[in-house]
Amino acid sequence: MIDHNKPILVFQTDFTYKEGAVSSMYGVVKSVDLTLEIIDGTHELPQYDIWSASYRLNQSLRFWPEGTVYVSVVDPGVGTQRRACVAKVEGGYYVVTPDNGTLTHIARDMGILAVRQIDESVNRLRGKNTEGVAIFHGRDLFGYTAARLASGVIDFEGVGPAYPVEEIVTLNLPEAKIENGKVTGMIEIDDPNFGNAWTNIPLSLMEKAGFSYGEMLPVVIRCKDREVFSQTILFDKAFGCVGKGEPILYNNELMNVAFAVCMGSFTQTYGVSYGSTWSVTIG
Amino acid sequence: MIDHNKPILVFQTDFTYKEGAVSSMYGVVKSVDLTLEIIDGTHELPQYDIWSASYRLNQSLRFWPEGTVYVSVVDPGVGTQRRACVAKVEGGYYVVTPDNGTLTHIARDMGILAVRQIDESVNRLRGKNTEGVAIFHGRDLFGYTAARLASGVIDFEGVGPAYPVEEIVTLNLPEAKIENGKVTGMIEIDDPNFGNAWTNIPLSLMEKAGFSYGEMLPVVIRCKDREVFSQTILFDKAFGCVGKGEPILYNNELMNVAFAVCMGSFTQTYGVSYGSTWSVTIG
Amino acid sequence: MIDHNKPILVFQTDFTYKEGAVSSMYGVVKSVDLTLEIIDGTHELPQYDIWSASYRLNQSLRFWPEGTVYVSVVDPGVGTQRRACVAKVEGGYYVVTPDNGTLTHIARDMGILAVRQIDESVNRLRGKNTEGVAIFHGRDLFGYTAARLASGVIDFEGVGPAYPVEEIVTLNLPEAKIENGKVTGMIEIDDPNFGNAWTNIPLSLMEKAGFSYGEMLPVVIRCKDREVFSQTILFDKAFGCVGKGEPILYNNELMNVAFAVCMGSFTQTYGVSYGSTWSVTIG
Repeated sequence: MIDHNKPILVFQTDFTYKEGAVSSMYGVVKSVDLTLEIIDGTHELPQYDIWSASYRLNQSLRFWPEGTVYVSVVDPGVGTQRRACVAKVEGGYYVVTPDNGTLTHIARDMGILAVRQIDESVNRLRGKNTEGVAIFHGRDLFGYTAARLASGVIDFEGVGPAYPVEEIVTLNLPEAKIENGKVTGMIEIDDPNFGNAWTNIPLSLMEKAGFSYGEMLPVVIRCKDREVFSQTILFDKAFGCVGKGEPILYNNELMNVAFAVCMGSFTQTYGVSYGSTWSVTIG
Repeated sequence: MIDHNKPILVFQTDFTYKEGAVSSMYGVVKSVDLTLEIIDGTHELPQYDIWSASYRLNQSLRFWPEGTVYVSVVDPGVGTQRRACVAKVEGGYYVVTPDNGTLTHIARDMGILAVRQIDESVNRLRGKNTEGVAIFHGRDLFGYTAARLASGVIDFEGVGPAYPVEEIVTLNLPEAKIENGKVTGMIEIDDPNFGNAWTNIPLSLMEKAGFSYGEMLPVVIRCKDREVFSQTILFDKAFGCVGKGEPILYNNELMNVAFAVCMGSFTQTYGVSYGSTWSVTIG
Repeated sequence: MIDHNKPILVFQTDFTYKEGAVSSMYGVVKSVDLTLEIIDGTHELPQYDIWSASYRLNQSLRFWPEGTVYVSVVDPGVGTQRRACVAKVEGGYYVVTPDNGTLTHIARDMGILAVRQIDESVNRLRGKNTEGVAIFHGRDLFGYTAARLASGVIDFEGVGPAYPVEEIVTLNLPEAKIENGKVTGMIEIDDPNFGNAWTNIPLSLMEKAGFSYGEMLPVVIRCKDREVFSQTILFDKAFGCVGKGEPILYNNELMNVAFAVCMGSFTQTYGVSYGSTWSVTIG
């Protein structure tokens, strides 16, 4: 039976369900220990997008019970020299992942207590005609090691040698700020389903700058120097506060402000994307 | 361990798996009670489409064991004044949903015994930097309340105040009928995967009108006054009864008649959609 | 509670999650036995593509624990005369499927020990207004029978009458070979997510032909007589061994060689698909 004295395993990857990869990976987990519970985080991360992997991990991990083992596999460098690791995260979580930038947001917002490199001589699937396979660490390394850790076959020390937390690969993470009464930040990620654009500007920074729900605020969004969006729009608590098709600045699920079109797509309507070239000025 | 003295939680939403929303929502459920079992109904309902939510709930709920807690979140009005509720459904089921029309088909076909408004002062996630979030009731309200109900932290009374079943928001549900020897109805929904078009005409009504499997029947499909499809086609038990690429009227999985193209898409081939403007005449 | 003295049920279908079919099917399983564990293999197999079903089953099944019951439903012939069966596979697995070619790869690579036709007079869902439904064997027959088998309501004999393994429907499976110092084979399947093209050429055959990692090898891919791809490319262990955008011949997760473009799509870039008309010559 599923044994909840053992931690849950949650998986996020860019594999999709279009072929048999997820099934093989989960089969390996269950072959290590039948009593482990596996839950899909998501298998639809954008391909090769380590930034998204880092963001989604940060968006979700804190809501899981203490002890949860979260496996994240966006791994364009598989088969090359990047490290495979397990990070011990504040709050009792373990993250099993290539050390390629996926830990960026978690390192800042939750805190990483320790990290160990997965020792492939011990923690790698054997047999089943997999010995020469170099390109599926989700199945052969990450899923397998996560299962062994969650089931108690190994403890954290058993993952492999520790290395300094400072050596973890991180991406550049700009911070929002107040300048001359305006709030400036970036479009940090989109909501690819509903077409919202999420900034890195905390609601608390908006309040510090003196902005309140119900106000109409001038907003400029730029891609590098090009002005992509420039309107004065409502700042409020929910996208339902404006009429269908109207843009709004609202407080998103992570307590950062975000752009939406009520029952529409902000990113498609206005041609807005995300990343370091996308800046926002409010006020 | 998963405890099956407790009911299963099934989720249907329009969130998709493209970002971290489902993972956060499920994390909250497991943080309420590790021993709850969560199963995906679907997270790919069409965006904001309350009609589809109502239809899919009705299509699936009756096949689950008595006691199952079904969470449905298609919620364009989140953060506005619509009620959040738990409905007690004939057969021992609970449905946790915004009261926005999602209960329409269930109310007619299964019967709702009682309904309670979720009391946010009690049944809302606290902490984790979520206190000011108004737009993710799937995570903060519906998932959380469903988990508490399924785990026994609260009973049905503990959801919040009861209100009259007659006050539940319902959408208009036309009924098929026999007129002058013809059967008339509507295209109630599509099968967005295989491209079939499902009517609201029960097989039993076809039989009452004197139609039998193996007959060639004249069919007209209109969008408002425009004739979109007009052919005499086979009425039979399965789409495999005609050749590849041919249209057929068959009996679908809910014992209503439906249109298909054998190994093709009826909706794409003939430009047919669904909803109150789409009428069907057979005979 | 989930009972792991009982086998896991894994499902692969072409149903998608776009409507309520998967939920109904899983509800039936849980209504047979609450303690069964259900895991998604995939519900995104290409529509009606029995070849893909056969390949994906073979790609995944061996990684699951002994005793796992794998349900595969790609079933364009539902409601017609094809057999519904349960196959007992070497390694202690059961596969529940229409006997329409889905067992092809498994029969060659794992071995089928016995096969029984599902007796619909016993092993079919009753009630719930399903008696006249001829088109949803995933819910009414395969899921239901698999649940009964996994839960111990029936044993393998209880499925229905045995028939000769030789009568199992199989598709034509060409084998790769060495001719005049060249290796010839086919593009057997794609990776529809990352855009790789997987051949039926084992790494071991490459080694037997004298080819080694690190070599530049001439490759020709043809669709029938038309040359679609003709380049000399690197043969190595992982797609990360070439620069972004470059093609490579690498060893895939099943120890067959495959074509990729590093962080790109080989199939899209070069217009390559898969199947019996797609041949490969290396050397």
